[in-house]
Amino acid sequence: MREVFHQSLEDVQGRLVEIAELVTIAIDKATRAFGTSDVALAEEVIEADAVIDEKAVELDELAIEILARQQPVARDLRIVVSALRMSASLERMGDIAEHIAQLTRMRFPERAIPKGLKSTFLKMGELDVEAARQLTELLRTQDGDLIDEIRNADDKLDELHVSVFEKVLSDSWQGDPSATVDATLASRYHERFGDHAVSVAKKVAYLSTGDWTSSTDTIDVVAPSL
Amino acid sequence: MREVFHQSLEDVQGRLVEIAELVTIAIDKATRAFGTSDVALAEEVIEADAVIDEKAVELDELAIEILARQQPVARDLRIVVSALRMSASLERMGDIAEHIAQLTRMRFPERAIPKGLKSTFLKMGELDVEAARQLTELLRTQDGDLIDEIRNADDKLDELHVSVFEKVLSDSWQGDPSATVDATLASRYHERFGDHAVSVAKKVAYLSTGDWTSSTDTIDVVAPSL
Repeated sequence: MREVFHQSLEDVQGRLVEIAELVTIAIDKATRAFGTSDVALAEEVIEADAVIDEKAVELDELAIEILARQQPVARDLRIVVSALRMSASLERMGDIAEHIAQLTRMRFPERAIPKGLKSTFLKMGELDVEAARQLTELLRTQDGDLIDEIRNADDKLDELHVSVFEKVLSDSWQGDPSATVDATLASRYHERFGDHAVSVAKKVAYLSTGDWTSSTDTIDVVAPSL
Repeated sequence: MREVFHQSLEDVQGRLVEIAELVTIAIDKATRAFGTSDVALAEEVIEADAVIDEKAVELDELAIEILARQQPVARDLRIVVSALRMSASLERMGDIAEHIAQLTRMRFPERAIPKGLKSTFLKMGELDVEAARQLTELLRTQDGDLIDEIRNADDKLDELHVSVFEKVLSDSWQGDPSATVDATLASRYHERFGDHAVSVAKKVAYLSTGDWTSSTDTIDVVAPSL
């Protein structure tokens, strides 16, 4: 039974990695599409999100099947419940990539990145992609050092998120309301993507530390106090 | 054993109702604070969110204990997993109420509702409170008619969300960038609150219909295609 459970967990882990890979591709394409106003690339992200949703549902079904058939207890049970939560966060990260792609499509043929914020959003996009890559690697290798790297990327995202609002609310901001809306939504999406990456990473951390409660909260920088 | 499980489920249900009640109080206070620039009321919401978070963690612990001790299978198992998901959504609804309160505090002593959008945001606030109340009642009574009412409130929220963007992007918009940022964030929060209410309601629907997959997706109107 132990052997069967171990194999099931490997299956769960493999699927989490697979979904994280799809999320990485999605956020990479979405942020590139956003940066270059590439509507075809944005469409690809929007279409592909259904696959991420489907894989997440399949993973949930597998986790429920493991709970039903193998009746894990104690730490094993918490690992399976963690997988359900990681699946929900990864699915949400896919949604966010889709939202960024939708912003690109909505503004096309205009550029989606507001003037004066190009380098900021390119950097935010890179950090999101970096966080997604590190998260995939973390899920694959359970290398705890990656958790700090994901936190670092998230910290930088939070700083850039604040800087977007500082820019938009400064006297030098020349954007029209449409640019202000885009900057607000895009910054929020980029920042939330990092939050979810940290949230998943903390759950992986739990698997090695057993510290459950610290893995259930999500950090959420909403809007800076300016 | 069946009796014990039944009692445990009643305990879970009671706790879901309790959290939903706290969320209802939070969104009621948050939207009133937002409407009247009442920073003291906003502070109350911000402080009280920790209680919601704590209750959600406690509920999760109870659900995990039920899984471990009573090893439910089939539909019973899915009910417990559903409870974990509902807990996560309710906790998120509490976060959103807190975000709306934070916007109020951030702009104080200025008013947080941008000029020209007062009636829209008051209406969105009422709909959020209505959805939260109906959701609490649904969790308490499992009266399926309430699911449609929650969907209706959410549909109206989606329409108002679109109308906020139409207003902000119209020629008549006189708001400065700060007002545009506030309108964008506040509208997004109000609209997401409704999404989560529908998401929880669908899970309650599952408990009566057994249709699991339809209860796992979340509707998410991001930004209107203008």
